[in-house]
Amino acid sequence: MANYKSDQEDILFNLNDVLNIKQYESYGLDESSIKEILIEYDKFVENEIYPTRQESDEVGVKMTDDGVKVPECLKKVNQAFYDMGWYALGVAEDIEGTPVPEALSAACRSLSMGANTAWSMYPGLTKGAMNVMHKVGDDFIKKTFIPKIMSGQWGGTMCLTEAGAGSDVGNLKTTAKPIEGKEGWYKIQGTKIFISSGESDLYENNIHLVLARTPDGVAGTKGISLFVVPRFKINEDGSCGESNDVSCPSFEHKMGIHASATCVLNFGDNNNCEGYLIGKEFEGMQNMFIMMNEARLDCGIQGESQGNLAYELTKQYVKERVQFGTEIVNHADIKKSLLKMRAMSRGLRSLILYTANLFDRAKEDEKYEDYIGLLTPICKSFCSEQGFEIAVEAVQAHGGYGYCSEYGVEQFVRDTKIATIYEGTNGIQAIDFVLRKILKDQGKALKSLSEEIFKSSNNLGDEFTFERGIFSKAFAASQDAMGYIGKHAKDKRMSYVLQSTKDFLDLSAHIVVAWRLMESAIVANKELESASGDRKEFLETKIVDFKIYCSQYLVKSIGLAKSIVSVDNDLAEYSI
Amino acid sequence: MANYKSDQEDILFNLNDVLNIKQYESYGLDESSIKEILIEYDKFVENEIYPTRQESDEVGVKMTDDGVKVPECLKKVNQAFYDMGWYALGVAEDIEGTPVPEALSAACRSLSMGANTAWSMYPGLTKGAMNVMHKVGDDFIKKTFIPKIMSGQWGGTMCLTEAGAGSDVGNLKTTAKPIEGKEGWYKIQGTKIFISSGESDLYENNIHLVLARTPDGVAGTKGISLFVVPRFKINEDGSCGESNDVSCPSFEHKMGIHASATCVLNFGDNNNCEGYLIGKEFEGMQNMFIMMNEARLDCGIQGESQGNLAYELTKQYVKERVQFGTEIVNHADIKKSLLKMRAMSRGLRSLILYTANLFDRAKEDEKYEDYIGLLTPICKSFCSEQGFEIAVEAVQAHGGYGYCSEYGVEQFVRDTKIATIYEGTNGIQAIDFVLRKILKDQGKALKSLSEEIFKSSNNLGDEFTFERGIFSKAFAASQDAMGYIGKHAKDKRMSYVLQSTKDFLDLSAHIVVAWRLMESAIVANKELESASGDRKEFLETKIVDFKIYCSQYLVKSIGLAKSIVSVDNDLAEYSI
Repeated sequence: MANYKSDQEDILFNLNDVLNIKQYESYGLDESSIKEILIEYDKFVENEIYPTRQESDEVGVKMTDDGVKVPECLKKVNQAFYDMGWYALGVAEDIEGTPVPEALSAACRSLSMGANTAWSMYPGLTKGAMNVMHKVGDDFIKKTFIPKIMSGQWGGTMCLTEAGAGSDVGNLKTTAKPIEGKEGWYKIQGTKIFISSGESDLYENNIHLVLARTPDGVAGTKGISLFVVPRFKINEDGSCGESNDVSCPSFEHKMGIHASATCVLNFGDNNNCEGYLIGKEFEGMQNMFIMMNEARLDCGIQGESQGNLAYELTKQYVKERVQFGTEIVNHADIKKSLLKMRAMSRGLRSLILYTANLFDRAKEDEKYEDYIGLLTPICKSFCSEQGFEIAVEAVQAHGGYGYCSEYGVEQFVRDTKIATIYEGTNGIQAIDFVLRKILKDQGKALKSLSEEIFKSSNNLGDEFTFERGIFSKAFAASQDAMGYIGKHAKDKRMSYVLQSTKDFLDLSAHIVVAWRLMESAIVANKELESASGDRKEFLETKIVDFKIYCSQYLVKSIGLAKSIVSVDNDLAEYSI
Repeated sequence: MANYKSDQEDILFNLNDVLNIKQYESYGLDESSIKEILIEYDKFVENEIYPTRQESDEVGVKMTDDGVKVPECLKKVNQAFYDMGWYALGVAEDIEGTPVPEALSAACRSLSMGANTAWSMYPGLTKGAMNVMHKVGDDFIKKTFIPKIMSGQWGGTMCLTEAGAGSDVGNLKTTAKPIEGKEGWYKIQGTKIFISSGESDLYENNIHLVLARTPDGVAGTKGISLFVVPRFKINEDGSCGESNDVSCPSFEHKMGIHASATCVLNFGDNNNCEGYLIGKEFEGMQNMFIMMNEARLDCGIQGESQGNLAYELTKQYVKERVQFGTEIVNHADIKKSLLKMRAMSRGLRSLILYTANLFDRAKEDEKYEDYIGLLTPICKSFCSEQGFEIAVEAVQAHGGYGYCSEYGVEQFVRDTKIATIYEGTNGIQAIDFVLRKILKDQGKALKSLSEEIFKSSNNLGDEFTFERGIFSKAFAASQDAMGYIGKHAKDKRMSYVLQSTKDFLDLSAHIVVAWRLMESAIVANKELESASGDRKEFLETKIVDFKIYCSQYLVKSIGLAKSIVSVDNDLAEYSI
């Protein structure tokens, strides 16, 4: 197994040189404190988290008479993560967190997710659930649950899916009936499936956020409400009490993330499961979406981070492995493959950090809210998919060794794949992107972002003549595709629209990622004039990344548009 | 888990309607006997092989005090495979085989490989080794080993790889020293790794074909000879004797094909391992290549077959799974995904069966030998890669269920991945394709095949105007790319050539596959005039496959050429 290595220089280049995150003065962090936090976090990742990656995959989750058990090695690292204050990073001050710029928080999350995705889901989902409690919970919820969660005693989950209600959440059957004389409390009954971190021995109590229908709830998503349902009831003094009639009869055996417990959860088998309404009745979906949007960005980070780590490990391997009398990095096709992996993985990073940073910018200009809306499905879908592709490429570059578990590379393929599916499949993301974020918005956000990209690309200097040309072609192609989609949407031929959404999302993603790498290349180009040594070498790679992305990805992405416009019939008419 | 289902109608359409394999009269098979053999073989696959697929993956190979053990369920199916005469199918008559047209043999192999790839490797490699013995072995070899192999008592392997000699086989360290007074026999010493079927309890004896260097062997591949090395020595009466000092200290834990024993093999730890020279001294590589070329086609079939089976299972799933009030096949993006999967998986099938059929055509016209040379790396590389992609897409269409082992779909992803690596990585295939099969041949075979494709596409009727247009664009693009490669090759700038080989192979593959689907569409179009009912429906899908391939794949493949020609520098100069 190769040694852990992160691309700290590139992360800091994004945070400081490109995004200049020290400008958000309320956080009180200058460049050197930003660097210090990142380096300290990365040390924890290297020394504590990464060493658990393969072991926790091999051991996996176990079902015992005493409930679900995670691999032993995760207990120490989980506790240390809280004790060292890393869970609190990026959390609001009023609940004892340590606020930092959003892009720094995302950069740190990326490091830990990449190093052990399966483990990262326990505190990750916990934080998502906690944020919902923080945003829409009443005083009872805030006082009862948040302190125990912040200290690492209690964990959290999100319970949406049921056997017949996957993407179609509105079809759920779980019910919530008011308990007479117990204001806010409901009897919960139903079965949820695919619940990540659904049960484990990492936490003393699991606090589930459960979607259910109250007696007055209409059919579909509009009749759904959200409930806080602890695994163990809470005593008067705030400690864990008796069972709350939540049980885990089984969990899934999966392709990857073996250390993440993906549980079936039964609520109220004995009619003794009590849940507390969070937010208003019937606003369950929108409140759950507070969590879903974060979860979607984090899903993207799962792909981005594993892609980046897979690249780093592969880089070490190809510089060591000798075939035909030379390290294989010196073989042209391997070199090309590595250059592509680097351009893509750094491109995904630049997209993720840019998007995370928008949360800070949106506080000053609400235009950026729309950008977040537009880029969230791109981050989720494109980063999960391309992170997977990089993992596949990493296996390939490792040859037979890549296929063997010992090297830990094939695990990236197995672990990343789920990110294209959960939190809304990538197909659902593409529909969200085109229907909700573009058509419903009448293309406003897309137009604004496009203009920004177009302006930057037009300003490219003569050293980037080729790249400028590719950008205009990609733009023109994407306008053709949007024209096709817009025309059919206007004529209410929705099949034509829906059969084009995924390709259009991918095309847009390529343009956005190329743009982020372009901004990096422009910054690097300026700094190059006064740089020397290792820094100069690094800055040169940033220019190469942009050029490689344009010649190897952006060029090919034009075919996505051609493919959209070349279908002049409704594919639904074909039978399979 | 979905029920086993193969696309018999499409296979028979390829064999009978497109390739007309009954024309090879020496086999004495008419259309109905061809159909009968295929259906009987498929019954065996459905009833005996497919039921072992998931179980053998879960159980995997075990190391015991008594050696390597395969999952118990494989023993019965393996024996039955020989007893029913299926191993003998496609084998020459002089060694008690049942010759059938090569395309029919490939179609049958595809069914069994798709249904349990890991198991299929035991008889598959055995047959490869046996073919080498049949072609270059002397009488001693033929009499001693082949009858026991044909009866299923003994198995075979190919032993090339060593720790420092993967793609670079010529670097191997295994030695062979003549044994005085024992004509033809050598003492073998060395360690081989990644040996598929290296040891197992499926066979009483394993007959290894081992590459080793004799004392006079020069460095590199030219000094290598090939040896038959049985696991157990052979007694005078032809039965198994004492150990031949071949041991398996360990095997690999892998991403997939868990039931295939990928062994480390030590030869001659106690200086008591004897091997018998097969073929002439120093001709080891070319004799091993007899096996390698077959193995490469079979590698392609591993991808093709699993892609096809993954598609069939997914088709069942999307027609049953209901979301948003309708079977998900009725959602536009799922329908599109399935149409693409079908077009690609059937396209791969048509490529494989066409290539297999060339072995029969080559007996009459040696031009087809060159086609085989050209298409072998395409089959190996493109089918393994696209088969994997279809498997990934199958997981995606299954949503969360696809990621769970229970459904058996994620196993396709894990099992197919190895085919892009072994028998020469796909990068090596691309180098073979461009350097040996095109440049060394001065483009003769490529030109001849291209002319054939060009002529067919020009004859497309008006119902295929769009497709004709795409073909000319793809052709023009591929000529640009070939021009770029040829120019740099002439100027001895080999980096430029080598950094383009993989994209060029992929582009060529798309054109060839589109052409095979075009031929199918033309045949179907003719037959349509007089067809009705289910047959009509089937024939219509063949036209749709071709159209979908053109609008969804061929259009995009043009970007591969653009990408090749847009790199105007030597990527080797960039550092990573």
